[in-house]
Amino acid sequence: MKKLLLLVCLITSIAHAEDGYRLWLRYDLVDNPRLLAEYRSSITGLQSTASETATKELLQGLQGLLGKKIPLLTTPQEGTLVVRTSPTTLGDEGYIIRTETIAGKHITQITANTDRGVLYGVFYFLRLIQTQQSIQKLAISSSPALPYRILDHWDNLNRTVERGYAGFSIWNWHTLPGYIDQRYIDYARANASIGINGTVLNNVNASPLILTPDYLEKAAAVAQTLRPYGIKVYLSVNFSSPIAIGGLKTADPLDPAVQDWWKKKTDEVYRYIPDFGGFLVKANSEGQPGPQNYGRTHADGANMLADALAPHKGIVIWRAFVYSETHEDRAKQAYNEFKPLDGQFHKNVWVQVKNGPIDFQPREPYHPLFGAMPQTPLMLEFQLTQEYLGFATHLAYLAPLFKECLDAGPPVASTITGMAGVANIGTDRNWCGHPFAQSNWYAFGRLAWNPKLSSAEIADEWLRQTFTNNPGFIDTVKKIMLTSREAIVDYMTPLGLHHIMGYGHHYGPAPWYDKASRADWNPVYFHKADSAGIGFDRTATGSDALSQYPPAIRAQWEDPKNCPDIWLLWFHRVPWGWKMHTGRTLWDELCHRYYTGVDSVRAMQKAWASVKGKVDEERAHQVEMLLNIQEKEAVWWRDACLLYFGTFSHMPLPEKAEQPAHTLDYYKKLQFPNAPGTSR
Amino acid sequence: MKKLLLLVCLITSIAHAEDGYRLWLRYDLVDNPRLLAEYRSSITGLQSTASETATKELLQGLQGLLGKKIPLLTTPQEGTLVVRTSPTTLGDEGYIIRTETIAGKHITQITANTDRGVLYGVFYFLRLIQTQQSIQKLAISSSPALPYRILDHWDNLNRTVERGYAGFSIWNWHTLPGYIDQRYIDYARANASIGINGTVLNNVNASPLILTPDYLEKAAAVAQTLRPYGIKVYLSVNFSSPIAIGGLKTADPLDPAVQDWWKKKTDEVYRYIPDFGGFLVKANSEGQPGPQNYGRTHADGANMLADALAPHKGIVIWRAFVYSETHEDRAKQAYNEFKPLDGQFHKNVWVQVKNGPIDFQPREPYHPLFGAMPQTPLMLEFQLTQEYLGFATHLAYLAPLFKECLDAGPPVASTITGMAGVANIGTDRNWCGHPFAQSNWYAFGRLAWNPKLSSAEIADEWLRQTFTNNPGFIDTVKKIMLTSREAIVDYMTPLGLHHIMGYGHHYGPAPWYDKASRADWNPVYFHKADSAGIGFDRTATGSDALSQYPPAIRAQWEDPKNCPDIWLLWFHRVPWGWKMHTGRTLWDELCHRYYTGVDSVRAMQKAWASVKGKVDEERAHQVEMLLNIQEKEAVWWRDACLLYFGTFSHMPLPEKAEQPAHTLDYYKKLQFPNAPGTSR
Repeated sequence: MKKLLLLVCLITSIAHAEDGYRLWLRYDLVDNPRLLAEYRSSITGLQSTASETATKELLQGLQGLLGKKIPLLTTPQEGTLVVRTSPTTLGDEGYIIRTETIAGKHITQITANTDRGVLYGVFYFLRLIQTQQSIQKLAISSSPALPYRILDHWDNLNRTVERGYAGFSIWNWHTLPGYIDQRYIDYARANASIGINGTVLNNVNASPLILTPDYLEKAAAVAQTLRPYGIKVYLSVNFSSPIAIGGLKTADPLDPAVQDWWKKKTDEVYRYIPDFGGFLVKANSEGQPGPQNYGRTHADGANMLADALAPHKGIVIWRAFVYSETHEDRAKQAYNEFKPLDGQFHKNVWVQVKNGPIDFQPREPYHPLFGAMPQTPLMLEFQLTQEYLGFATHLAYLAPLFKECLDAGPPVASTITGMAGVANIGTDRNWCGHPFAQSNWYAFGRLAWNPKLSSAEIADEWLRQTFTNNPGFIDTVKKIMLTSREAIVDYMTPLGLHHIMGYGHHYGPAPWYDKASRADWNPVYFHKADSAGIGFDRTATGSDALSQYPPAIRAQWEDPKNCPDIWLLWFHRVPWGWKMHTGRTLWDELCHRYYTGVDSVRAMQKAWASVKGKVDEERAHQVEMLLNIQEKEAVWWRDACLLYFGTFSHMPLPEKAEQPAHTLDYYKKLQFPNAPGTSR
Repeated sequence: MKKLLLLVCLITSIAHAEDGYRLWLRYDLVDNPRLLAEYRSSITGLQSTASETATKELLQGLQGLLGKKIPLLTTPQEGTLVVRTSPTTLGDEGYIIRTETIAGKHITQITANTDRGVLYGVFYFLRLIQTQQSIQKLAISSSPALPYRILDHWDNLNRTVERGYAGFSIWNWHTLPGYIDQRYIDYARANASIGINGTVLNNVNASPLILTPDYLEKAAAVAQTLRPYGIKVYLSVNFSSPIAIGGLKTADPLDPAVQDWWKKKTDEVYRYIPDFGGFLVKANSEGQPGPQNYGRTHADGANMLADALAPHKGIVIWRAFVYSETHEDRAKQAYNEFKPLDGQFHKNVWVQVKNGPIDFQPREPYHPLFGAMPQTPLMLEFQLTQEYLGFATHLAYLAPLFKECLDAGPPVASTITGMAGVANIGTDRNWCGHPFAQSNWYAFGRLAWNPKLSSAEIADEWLRQTFTNNPGFIDTVKKIMLTSREAIVDYMTPLGLHHIMGYGHHYGPAPWYDKASRADWNPVYFHKADSAGIGFDRTATGSDALSQYPPAIRAQWEDPKNCPDIWLLWFHRVPWGWKMHTGRTLWDELCHRYYTGVDSVRAMQKAWASVKGKVDEERAHQVEMLLNIQEKEAVWWRDACLLYFGTFSHMPLPEKAEQPAHTLDYYKKLQFPNAPGTSR
C-alpha cells in the first residue's frame, strides 16, 4: 500500500510539477513518518464554528498534510481540533492556540475574538505542521505589532506594472467584475496566511479612471473576494480627479466644490465597498498633481480627503516620497517638507515614508522622518519588487534589509503604525518571477506582524513550507538567503554608493549616466566621482542631510573616520587613497567589495548545486538558470563600475583578479529598449 | 488499496486544481476500470529507440494514464510497446501504429522515418488512450495534408500582444536566453501533440530589433527548446530593417547594398538558428514599410528576401493582407495587387492569405485569392485569437469557421500548402483565457494536419482529453461547441454584416462609428445603412468584388434572390422590406437573428448548468462566469445594433420580445480606454 502511495505521488508529481504557484501553502503529505503518525493521532477530527473560509482552509491543509480525511464533529472527542471565536484579550486580530484537556479528552483549541483572528490562528497552526513542529503541548498567543499591513500594487489599469518583473498585473480589469480569477482567491489566502490585511490595487501614479463607476464596480468585486480573508481594499487616487472625471475646473483642496466632489465620490466608493480601507496618494512628486499646484500644503490636501473618509472610518495614506527640481540635496527634501507639518494632519491621515531617503537602493540609511513626526501616524514603505536589486533574476532575500531599517535609529519599528510593501507579484506562474522572490512577500508579511522575528527564523520557516524540511537543504539554502542581500550591495553599490543604475529602466550599471533632464536623476549626481575622490558630502560642509538625524546618530556618522564603511560614500566625499577601517585604501576596498560580491554569487551557485536531489528538479533547475544570469550580471556590474571609477582614481584593478572582458565603452553602449517594468 | 488510491487522488485534486495549464495533455488515470485493465494488459513495457523527447512523453503519459510504472525493455515481450524510426512511405512526418505479433508475442509498434514522425505517432497513441479508444487491433497510418502548419504570434518585444486576450506574451525576452521557462517546453509539447511544426515568435508589425544580435541570441534559445519537438522558429521582419538597424539610407529591394545587407543578416540568423524557418513579412499594409515605398512590387520585395534565404532552405512568407486609402472596395484590394504577381515570385516565397477578404470577421466569404494564384504556394491565415469574436470571454468554437473556409470554393483546402493560425496564447494560467479557447488552438493544428476532419470529431476528441470522457458531458457540451460560432454571428453580425465593432479596440458593437481617419476603418463604410436599405453592393452595380470569384460561385451569389441569406448584406444592398428566404422581411429577419443569437447563448448557459457534477468544479465555475459575461455582451450587441439600425428602418422591434434596457445614446457613449489587445 505504501508503495502504491509513493507511486501515485510520483505520478502526481509528474503531472503536477512544482511550478511555484502554491507558494508556501503546498500542504503536501508530511514526509517524516514519525511526525506524520503523531499529527494523525493528535488530530482525529475537527469541530469548527469558524468562518467557512477558515474551515475550508483547515480541511484542505490538514487533508493534504496528513493524507487523511478529517471528520467534522459536533462535540469534541480525543484529538479533536476545536476552532471558534471566543473572547480573548488579544484584540481584533490576535489568536490563541492551546492544547487542553476537557473532560479527560485532549483537544487543540484555536480561538480569537473575530473570524479574522481565527483565520490567522488556523494559518499559524497549519504552518506548525508544514514546518514539522511538535503540536503536542501548544500554548501560543499572538497578535500583530502593527495594525496596518498593506501591499501596494503599482499596477496600471492596462495591466502593465510599474517596476514589475513577474509578468503583468494579476488584476484583469477587463474581465472584472464578472470573472473572478482563482488567482484572486489564492492571493487572498497567501496574504491572510502571513497576516497582510490590506491591499492597494492600483499604481500610485494613478489613473483618475479608477474612481469611475465602471472601475469601482470592478474594485468592489475584488473587495468581495478578499473580504472573507480579512483583507481590505484601498485605492490610489489622482489628486486631479475632480478635474479629470468630475468636470471641475480646479482640484484646489480649499475650494468648497472640490471638497464636495470628494465627499460625494467617497460616499459613492463606500456604496460599492462598505469596508473600503482608504486612499493612497502620491502628490506633488515626479509629475503627479497635488495641493501645491494651488499653493496649498500636503496637509491641506490630505485633510480634505481625510474629512471625506472620516465618516466611513477610512484613512488617507499620504506619501512623503517627494522631491523637486531644486538645488537642495534630494535626500533632504521629504524631511524638509513634512517635518514642519507634524501636528497639522487630521487624525485619519497616515504619512507613508520609504525606508530610506532616496529610493529603495540596495542599502540606504533609515529615513530621518522616522521619529521626527511624533504627532503623525507613519507607515513604513518597503519595496518588495526588486527595482534596484536585480529585477526578478537575482536571488535577493530582503528580510535583512527590512530588519536593518526596522532596528535602526529610534528604532524605526517603534515609530510606525503600519508597513506597506510595494508588491513583487505578477502573472508569472510562480507569482514573483524568481522562486526566492516569494520569500520577500512572505518576510514582509511576517515582519509587519512581528518586527522582532529574525531574518534567519523567517527564512527557515519559509524554506520549510516552500521547498522541504530536509535539514541539509535548510542549512545550506538559509545561508544562501542570508548572504544574498549583502552580495548584491557588494556587486552593485558598496560602501554607501547609490543610484548608479541604468537610466529609466534601472537595469544594470550606468554610473557614467549624466543625460537625464534633472540633475537628481543622474547617477553622477549621487557619486560625484572625479580625480580627487568620490562620495556625496552630506555633513555640515556639504548638504548637511545629517542634521536631520538625532544627535547620537549624527555624532556617529559625521566624522568619516568613525562613520561605518557601509555608509561612507553616502555621507562623505573622500579621496581615493582614504584609509578604510579594513586598512585598505578606498580604491582597494572598492575593488575588494565588487570582487567579493561576484565571489558571493559564485558561492551561492556552488551551494545551490550541492543541494541538488534534496529539492524538486523543476525549481532546482529554475534557480540554477537564474543564478547563472545573476552571476553574469554581477560580473557586468563589477566590471562596468570599476572600469568607470578607475578613470577617476587612475588606480589599477587588483593584479591577480579576473579582468574585465570588455572595455568601458562597450558597457556604456549597451541599450535595453524593452527592459521590463517601465511605464507604458 | 483502491480506497487509498481514491483518497490520495482526492487530496491531490484539492492541492492541484484543474487550472487548465495542462491543456489537452492531462494524462490523468483512466477512469473506466474495464478499459484501464485492458490498457494495462496491452502495455506492459516499453522498448524505445526513439528520441529522448518522445520516450519521455510516452513514459509520462502512460504512467499517468495507467497509474503504473512502465518498465523500459531491450527486447520485446508480450504487451511491449515498440517505438523506433524505421523506413516508411509516409514522408518526413508521417507515422504508422500497428498491433503486431512477433514470435508469438503481441506488441504495438509506432514507427516513422524520422524522430518527428515518431513523436507525432506517440502523441496519437496517447490520444487514443486519453479518449478511451480501443488499442487492441491498431492499423493506423497518417501523414499531414499540409507541410506548413504554423502559429503566428502577434507578440511584441515588450510582451504586449496585439489582439491578445489571454494576458501577455509567453516569450519573456528579458530573461532569455539564460532562463528557459517551463512554459516554452509545455508550449512545444502541446504544439507537437497536434502536429504544429512552426512558430513565428513576434508580431507582424515587427520591431527591427528582432534582427539584432541580442534578440537573435534570445530567439536561438527558444529555437533550441522547440527543436526536439519538431518545431521550427520563424521571425517577422520589418522591411525597413536595413535603415533602422543596418545604417543604410534605403531599404529599396533592388539596391545592391540592401540586398547584400539582407544576405549577410540572413547568414547571421542561420549562424544562430541553423534550422531557421524563414521570414514573415507584413509590407505596405496599415503603415508598415514595404517595397512600394521605393516604387517596387511585392514580388521585388519578397524575392530579395527569398534569395537571401534560399541557400539555407528558408522561406519567405509574404502577407497578402494589404489595402490602401483609395476609393476601391477594401475587400478587393489584396486580389487586385497579388493576382497579377502570380508567377513572379521566386520559388521559396509563400503568399499568406487571410481566410476572408476583409479581416477575420465572425463570418466572411472565402478569400478570392484562393485558387487564383496557381503558380504561387499559398498559406491560409486563420485568427485563433478572438479579435472579432468576443475576445477571451465568449465561448466560440471556431472549427466550423475554419471548415467553412477550407471547404468553400475550389475548395480552398486544395489550393494551399500551409496554414497559419494567429495564436490565442498568453500568460494566463490556462494559456488562452477561456477554457474553451484552447479548442481553437487544438482544432487549428488538427485541421492543418487533416482538413477532412469534421468539427464534431475534433470537438469530441478535444473534450475527452481536456475535460472528461463522460458521455453525458460530451453529448451536451459538443452541442454547445458546435452551435457557438453561429450564435456569435447571430448576435454580432448576422446576414453578411461585418466590421461593425468598436473602433480601435474592437470591443463591443459600434455600427454608428464614423470618426476614423480612413473611410474603410469605419463601420458605416461596411454596412451603408440608410432609410432606403442596408448592405454593401459588391455586384457589378457596385464594387464588383464578386468578379474576383470563379463564375460558378459568382453566379450563385450575384443575384440577391439566389444569394444565401448568410452572405446577403456582404454582397448586396437591399431595402428594409426585402423578402428573405425565410419569408420574413429583411428587418424582421435581422431582428430574428439578433434575438436568436442571444437565445442561443442562454441555451448554452442552461446546457452548461446541466453538466455540473460531470466536470471539475473549477472549470465548471469558470465557464459559468464567462457564459454570464457572454450573455450580457450578446444582449449589448443585439440591443445596440437593433436600436441603431432601427433609426434607418423606422421599424419596431418584435413586440413581445425583450426590449433594450438602455437608449441608443447610452450605448454610443460607452468607452473602453483600457480594453486589452491594443498595441501599446
